[in-house]
Parts: sequence; structure tokens; C-alpha cells
Amino acid sequence: MPSQSWVLTDAAQNLHLEPFAISEKDGTRLEGATNWAIRRTTLRGGVSTGVDVVEIDNGRLKVSILPTRGMGLWRGECDGLPLGWQSPVARPVNPAFVNVMDRGGLGWLAGFNEWLCRCGLDSNGPPGEDVVPNNEGHPTRTELTLHGRIANIPAHYVEAAVSTEGRGTLSVTGIVDECMLFGPGLRLKSTVRTDAGSNRLTIIDEVINLRGVASEFELLYHANMGRPFLEPEAQIVAPVMEVAPRDGRAAESIGQYNVYGPPTAGYVEQVFWMNLAAAPDGRTLVLLRNAHGDKGVSLRFNKRELPCFTVWKNTQAEADGYVTGLEPATNYPNSKTFERKQGRVPVLPPGGSYKTSLELSVHATARDVTAAEQEIAAIQKLHPPQVHTQPQARYSRLDG
Amino acid sequence: MPSQSWVLTDAAQNLHLEPFAISEKDGTRLEGATNWAIRRTTLRGGVSTGVDVVEIDNGRLKVSILPTRGMGLWRGECDGLPLGWQSPVARPVNPAFVNVMDRGGLGWLAGFNEWLCRCGLDSNGPPGEDVVPNNEGHPTRTELTLHGRIANIPAHYVEAAVSTEGRGTLSVTGIVDECMLFGPGLRLKSTVRTDAGSNRLTIIDEVINLRGVASEFELLYHANMGRPFLEPEAQIVAPVMEVAPRDGRAAESIGQYNVYGPPTAGYVEQVFWMNLAAAPDGRTLVLLRNAHGDKGVSLRFNKRELPCFTVWKNTQAEADGYVTGLEPATNYPNSKTFERKQGRVPVLPPGGSYKTSLELSVHATARDVTAAEQEIAAIQKLHPPQVHTQPQARYSRLDG
Amino acid sequence: MPSQSWVLTDAAQNLHLEPFAISEKDGTRLEGATNWAIRRTTLRGGVSTGVDVVEIDNGRLKVSILPTRGMGLWRGECDGLPLGWQSPVARPVNPAFVNVMDRGGLGWLAGFNEWLCRCGLDSNGPPGEDVVPNNEGHPTRTELTLHGRIANIPAHYVEAAVSTEGRGTLSVTGIVDECMLFGPGLRLKSTVRTDAGSNRLTIIDEVINLRGVASEFELLYHANMGRPFLEPEAQIVAPVMEVAPRDGRAAESIGQYNVYGPPTAGYVEQVFWMNLAAAPDGRTLVLLRNAHGDKGVSLRFNKRELPCFTVWKNTQAEADGYVTGLEPATNYPNSKTFERKQGRVPVLPPGGSYKTSLELSVHATARDVTAAEQEIAAIQKLHPPQVHTQPQARYSRLDG
Repeated sequence: MPSQSWVLTDAAQNLHLEPFAISEKDGTRLEGATNWAIRRTTLRGGVSTGVDVVEIDNGRLKVSILPTRGMGLWRGECDGLPLGWQSPVARPVNPAFVNVMDRGGLGWLAGFNEWLCRCGLDSNGPPGEDVVPNNEGHPTRTELTLHGRIANIPAHYVEAAVSTEGRGTLSVTGIVDECMLFGPGLRLKSTVRTDAGSNRLTIIDEVINLRGVASEFELLYHANMGRPFLEPEAQIVAPVMEVAPRDGRAAESIGQYNVYGPPTAGYVEQVFWMNLAAAPDGRTLVLLRNAHGDKGVSLRFNKRELPCFTVWKNTQAEADGYVTGLEPATNYPNSKTFERKQGRVPVLPPGGSYKTSLELSVHATARDVTAAEQEIAAIQKLHPPQVHTQPQARYSRLDG
Repeated sequence: MPSQSWVLTDAAQNLHLEPFAISEKDGTRLEGATNWAIRRTTLRGGVSTGVDVVEIDNGRLKVSILPTRGMGLWRGECDGLPLGWQSPVARPVNPAFVNVMDRGGLGWLAGFNEWLCRCGLDSNGPPGEDVVPNNEGHPTRTELTLHGRIANIPAHYVEAAVSTEGRGTLSVTGIVDECMLFGPGLRLKSTVRTDAGSNRLTIIDEVINLRGVASEFELLYHANMGRPFLEPEAQIVAPVMEVAPRDGRAAESIGQYNVYGPPTAGYVEQVFWMNLAAAPDGRTLVLLRNAHGDKGVSLRFNKRELPCFTVWKNTQAEADGYVTGLEPATNYPNSKTFERKQGRVPVLPPGGSYKTSLELSVHATARDVTAAEQEIAAIQKLHPPQVHTQPQARYSRLDG
Repeated sequence: MPSQSWVLTDAAQNLHLEPFAISEKDGTRLEGATNWAIRRTTLRGGVSTGVDVVEIDNGRLKVSILPTRGMGLWRGECDGLPLGWQSPVARPVNPAFVNVMDRGGLGWLAGFNEWLCRCGLDSNGPPGEDVVPNNEGHPTRTELTLHGRIANIPAHYVEAAVSTEGRGTLSVTGIVDECMLFGPGLRLKSTVRTDAGSNRLTIIDEVINLRGVASEFELLYHANMGRPFLEPEAQIVAPVMEVAPRDGRAAESIGQYNVYGPPTAGYVEQVFWMNLAAAPDGRTLVLLRNAHGDKGVSLRFNKRELPCFTVWKNTQAEADGYVTGLEPATNYPNSKTFERKQGRVPVLPPGGSYKTSLELSVHATARDVTAAEQEIAAIQKLHPPQVHTQPQARYSRLDG
């Protein structure tokens, strides 16, 4: 048995296993760890009622996946360090209780508390008008809502798998369809995979155009870090070729774009657009490290898949969400109309697909943090960073 | 025991039987079939979670009713032929996950995949502004959304019944309330009835004004046919007195209004308004037949109840929904304001009700199809069809 | 064991007891009654599916609390008299089926049928524009919806308690969070408490600002009375210092502001703003009594906590909701922008809280009704009522 899998949910078969748990006790031995497990539970109470949680625990790192919320990663733990942040929204929210159109299209924020969620697939970025064909084929103005729909669509298919190859691998795959007649027809197929006993996990995603016509899409990973990685004097370390403030507010602190401040009541978010350096094959990485450089989280991805990188600094008071977002994406989270003009909205042919891979690693020692920093420095070496002190027309809509 | 019934759901009593199944094994023998059954299941997984399905199987024809979606008919089968269509929305959607206001009021399309659903009851037709009294009695502009609310309201009462009279009859009745304070107060009482071993079912609906004041309503049956009835060179056969294109797009193909093309990527819908001939007592029928005329589905109804008939051609690529809608209704699916001006929005007095009956028959042989065609020809005989090549002011708003 | 408590729901622990019931049979004896109980059920069927109901029965008065609907009080009974009203919305509605933005921001009315619900917490009053900071810190126009969100947010924590002190006390406490990133962060902690064998209950609420910055809030109790308390010639008895009609419609009947008419088809609501007299410590009360003065319901509260009092007359046809609302509140239910200008929107510091207490008593005899009237007369004595025949600028926006 090199690999075994279990279908946890399949709406097409009206199948939903609950509860579900698999661990070493069930007869599979993995080289990398003994105390691994995959478990499913369903949340009860308040707006969490009905939210499906699949926890994947490799014996060292564990993470809770939310099939009900578009396969987002709620929170995790590795080497005793919590992965996630303290959102004002305390627990996962069933999309049935999220009205994305609320508060001028910001309703998405009433469900936002994941360590990592996706923004897309038809669009991401702020609320704003777009022009789409309606059912009669007429161009029609419609309001896009903040960060799109994918984080509020439940997966209709969920599968868990265990492989005994190498040190052993655990994985969970989900399929989420964002579709309607006369509208988007985009599928997300997402796998979270982690080796037994390791300090990392990989997200392997595929966006598939289910339609018979070409379709745009946008995909952004909103990876959100709180304490203990974020703290005063924590730093973002990235192989920056170019960085620009989103707006005047971000420009105020461009000199400190890579350093974080303390929780500050009334702080208004600062967003920085980055164009990262990468290895010749496109691979790059970024690191968030704490002040003392002995704790960090890094993201590895390929610029050919995720060319745009955004840093969201939101060091509000703890009660309001002290957090930073590291956001590799196909685009910058501007309005879709602006991104389209900049040529940053990919188009998939009928049946076409787009694959991305994103690795998150947890560095729990100074040595591990230093190793990541050195790797970033090596990529940076040939690319002196260009820091724009003012917003740039290629990255930000300057007229409003 | 000529007739027996079971209450499956009654919110007033907090009663909900699940699962439920009744068949010959339970002791009731029907003349028309031995393998009949009525079964309820609840869907799990993705946006289908919590959708109640009641399948009524007369031994030859079966159909899945969706109490959770306003008593729509999801899909069926008769003589081995599938009844329904392949929507981009793969499975029934719990209304909790449908935001009808989304995408400029087209959010209804994110839940649309039924073989037959109702559009109404307060309004149907495209999104658009209407003026209604608010709680303070002031005329207030409000946005109506595509095809109204009834398809996204769960039935609060569901009953199954079996009668041994004649060849035996199976039926399922549901009650759905579309109501709010200071707003619509309309009840749908719907029965789906089918004789054991037959190739047909009848939908018997009653719309009841629950209010203490007179109330408008609109009711349209959106009966949606895919393969094998719809295919290239399939035809709509109807006793047409008058047919007019909805708009310029439909006018392009007015000469082929009754013939279907192949799946066509990027096809924009074409809609034709029809004024049908009928027998002296109002009865009429329409038929969709395949290219070879050996498979068909017909709809029988009474023009006194459902005076307007609309054909929706939507021969998009298979992936996008290759489908046609046959739509008997109280009105044409224009904006309610336009229909009101044309005198096509019925008004019910306090406590008043409106009854409709709609029979769907499946014709699985050339002989059966020919019989339906002959019946239509007999109604047509005295009424030479008038084909308008351009949109008509009585049927379409021409100024926009 | 002077006091014992049970956690019925705690989302933080993923705990949800269902069913739950506690009564004398479980071993606790109360002085005031033998047939007391606290019971939880979950509703099934239609839009009520999933609504949690906790009934608290003191042996004489019972009331059904709706944790799923922001701890509203659905309906009750005392001395054989029904507490509540006949809304066109027959049963409690799961917020998953309420789109508060529907019908021009009046969607709240599709879920409104409680004996008592709260309007707030970020805002109450009619739909209308407000200007709030968006995530980028920019002032942004947003549409507030009728009466805010709190009545459509499920409690994430519910606890029942029984105390043997005195005659014995039953209570149910719930916690409801109205929160989102970059938006409101307001918590309602609500306790309903009633003494065994008594004819009254007390609602003890606390609104807590969870944010790290100062926050506005609005809180209104919408207590809604139908028959047998409301009937033709029923009266509202209140220690009125000042009363003003909301608008021209209310001014039509200012001379009869305290007397109710019969059910009237097409009646348009009349709303009266009141400034009540109170005892030196702020305590005051109002009474709704039937025509013969032998049945009544009174509300006691403190003007220092709830300075504004509104009477909503809505004597529509029975089918449309024959009801009156008695509404003690922090503000009058005008638009939040207007109330802010009048200085009637309280602001809580970070972590600050605001406590209110509201007692509802049922008077089932003429003697009891008379006693309440005498108490009101005593408060009234030193304050001759001033009746404004026209809307007043301090209470109503006169320009629209």
C-alpha cells in the first residue's frame, strides 16, 4: 500500500463521511512520524454552524483546512508555534451567514480570519464596478465585491490521502466550483500536502475554466500572519527588485516598508506592491521573521505562476486584528478593470487550466531563519532593489 | 384505503421525516405499476448541503422534486430518457448560498439547473427597478432581481399521497410562502401528481394572496429541456397565432424560430414571445421534438390560466448549458413595470387565489410524437400563424 | 446548590447540547413553582430549519428565546394569555434565509415576527446612507439596512441557569457578536431572567465594544404586542412629558396617539416619539392595556439607560400584522446620520460597555392593570404632558 485515499465528501454521490479520522492506529506506518492524523469535524454554534474542518497533522505541523470556506487554511501549529492571527471574527464563518455585498461590497470581511485564504477566482481586489455581459449579451455594469467569491463557496468534493513513500506524505484535496449560468465557470482543485514530521506544507492548486468560451480569472493567496512571527521590529525579507507604495498612506512609511511597528489603535493599512527577483527557473521566496530572528514563516512559489507579490501591513490594535498579509498572486489586488488594462488578468481557453504551487515553511530557530535569509540574499544578489517612494502608474490607479 | 397520505414536513408542528420511503413493499398495490415509490433524501456536500429531495417514481416516469427550492422539479427519467439539462451549476443549490442580488440582480442564475422551476411570485423577468410602497407608505424605488424569489424559498409543508383509485396515483404537495411584513404575502400550494405506469405528470398549483389587501403576482413555469430532446434540428411545435422576437438578437433568426441549432460557443440567447391558439375551452399544448421526431416532451396547459408563452433558445456550448426553455406563464418575462402597463400582471383580492395546471408528457416513440403533432395541428388549423419579423410594442419594451 | 448552570452552546469549544431539558424531575426544587422547565429544540422545515429555540418556563410565564436570531424573544404565554403577535412571517426565520439588503434595504422584514427583538447594534432605523471608513481608511458611502444586523446573528454562546435562592430563578444567557474586520466590533451579552411562578421577566443586556478604538452603537428594543392586549380601544398608558408625531401621517391622529383602532386593511403605520417622565432615579414604565382594562403588558426600564421611547402603531388587517410596537431605546429609530446630529448615538471607548435592563410584566386582571396605571399616574403627576401636533425638528428629519 504505497498510497491510500478516502473520499470524505462527494456531492455527486451524496456522500459525506462525518466524523472521519485516520491515524497510525488504523494500520499505516509512516517513516517520518508516528503521531500523524487526518481528522474531520463539523463546527456547531453561532455563525460557525455547519462549517466542515479537516485537520491534517503530520506529527510536527498541523493545519485546519476549511472545505466549507473554499479550502482555506484556518489555523495551524508547528513546533509549538501558532500559525494564524487573531481576527475580530473569532471563528470560521459559514458562507450562508456572509453577505459579500454588505457594507458597500466589504461583506467578505465578516468571514475573514484564515491563516491563508484565496481571493478570486473571477476577481479579487477592492469593491468596484466592472462591465460584464448579462444573459441578453448586453454589457452590463455590475459591482464586484471585495476579493471575490471563492473563499465563501463550499467544496463539493473532499478527499484525504496517505502515502507511505519516502518519509510518508499526508494530503487533502478539495474541489470548489465558482459557477453560474451566463457567468463565471471556474473550478479550483486544491491539494494541501505535507510530509510526515516536516515543518512545511505545500498547496498545489489548479484553476480550470469549465466554460465553452475563454475566461478571465484572478488568484491571490492571502497568507496572514500574527504573533509570534509578527511583532514590533519584525521584518519582511524578500528579494525585492522593485517596491512601490499603493497610495499616499503607504508612501508615508516607504522607508520602513520591510519593518513592522507595534499594535497601534486606529492604524490605517499600508500596502506595498513588489516585483520580486527569482532564480532562473522562476522560483523565489519571502520570509516574515520576528524581531530577534529566531522565528519565521516563509513562502516559496514560482514567479512564472504567481508574478505579483503584495505586502499588507495592518498593525492595528490587537483587538482589531494585528496582522500582516503576504500575498503572492497572478495580479495585484487592484480593481479588475485596472489590472485588466495592465495586462495582469490571465485568460484561460475553454477547458484550460492554470497550476500554482505554494510552500509554507515554519522556522522555529535562529539557524533556520538565517538559512532562509541567506537563500533570499542569494536571489537578491544580482538585483539591487529599487524602492519607489511614490505610487507608480503601473501598479496603482493614480487618478482616484 | 383508496388514498393514504404522509406529512413529510410541517414546520408548524416542527415535524420533518427523514429519510422517508414508501413503495409496494409497504402494502399498497397499484394497478398501473408494481415498482412505484416515493422517497425523500437530503443532499450533503458543497452548496447542496441541506437540500431536501423527494423523488416520485410511478414505475415508468420518475422525477425529483426540490421542496427546498420552491417545489422545483430538478430532473427525471421516463422510458430511459433523461429529463432535464446539463447546467453549469451541477447540482441543486441550497438557497442559503444564493444571493439573488449578486451580479447586478442575476444571482438567481447561481442556483438555476432545474428541469422545471417557477419564476415569481411577486415578480419575474429581468432585474430592474420597480416602485413599491415602503413601511412608511411612501413609494420607494427597489431593484427587482431576476425571476423573483419563489425558486429560492423552502417549502414549510410537504405531504406525499398514494391513491389506489383507477390505475393508482402518486402525488406530492408542498406549500411555499413568499412573505414579509409590508411586502409580498403570496403562498404557492403545489401538487405534482402522476398515474402509476404513465408517461406524464401534472403540476397543479394555486397562488394564494395571504394579505388583507389586493396583491399583484406573476407566475412563469421555466421548463428547461436538454438532450436528447434538444439537439441540432430539433423543433418546437406549437399552435402559434402570433410570434415575435424579443429583440434584435432574436429577430436575426425569426425565420428559424422553431428550429434549433447545434451547441455554439458564445451563442447569445434568443427569446420569442408567442400568442398560442387554443381549443374553445382554452386548452393548448406545445411540443419539443428531436430531429428525427422519435423523442419529444409536451406541455399541456390552459390559456385562460397561462395566457403567455415564451420560448428561450440558449444553444450555447454544452459546457455552458445547451438548453431551451418552454415557458407558459401569466405574463411575458419582461420587467414587471412593462408587463403592468400591458395589463398582464394579475391582481388577487384579499384571500383570493389563482389556479393553474400544467401537464408534462414524455413521448418516446415516433408514433407518440406524431400524435402530439397532430393534436397541435388540429388546434392550429383555424389560426394561420402570424410571424412578426421585428419586436412588437405589445410584447417588448422597444425603447431600451 | 444555590445556583447551577449548563452551557448549551459554546462555539469556542465546538459544544452544542441538543436536545436539552431541565425541570424539577432533575432534582432541583424551587419555592415559586413546581412545573418550571428550560428546554431547547431546533426547528425543522422551510426557512425555520436550524433555528434554535430555548424555552424558559417559570411555571406561570413561559417565553421562547431564539439564540439563532440574536437572542430575540419569539413568543410566550402567561396566565393563559398569548404573548406576541401574528406576523405575516409565520415562524422564526434562519438568518441564512434573510437578505437584509433585499427590497431596498427592507429585507429584515422577511424575518420579523418576534414578541421582542433588538434593533442595532451598529445602527437601527430605516434604510439609508451613512459614511464609514473603508479598509483603506477612506470615508465611503454605504447603505445601512433596516434595523441593523443583530436580530440576524446567531449567538455563539448560550447558557441556562437555575438558582434556588428566594422563590427560585431561571435564566438564559447568550452572547452575540456583530463584528468584521474594519467594521463594527460590538458584542451583545443578554440574559433573560424570571422568578419561578411570577408574571414577569427581565432582560439584562450589555453591549461591549470589542474594538481597540472608540465605537458608536444604537440599541432599540422592538417589543411587539398583538391580541388580546391590542384591540380596538386598547390604550397605551405612559408618563408622557412630550409626544410628537414622526411625520404627517402620524400627525393625522395625534389626538388619538394613545388609543388604538381596529384592524384596517391598507392602514399605513403611525409612529410617535415620546420623551417620558421618570422617577428621580430614572425608572419609568409604560403599559399597553386592552379596551376593558383587564389585560395589560407593561415595560419597565430606566431612562438613563434607554432615554428614547417610540410607539409604532401598525393596526393593519389581521392578515398583514395587527400589531403595536413599544420601543425603548438609546435613540429614536431615525437614520443614524440624523440621530448622530441630535447627539443620540452613544459612543463606547475601547473595551467599554453599556448596560440596560428591561422588565416585561403581564397583567391578567383589572386590579393588576389598575395598579400599573396608578404607578404611571404617580410618575406623570409632576409633568403635564406636552403634545406636539406637528413633527418636531429635534425628533424628525423635516426636510425629507
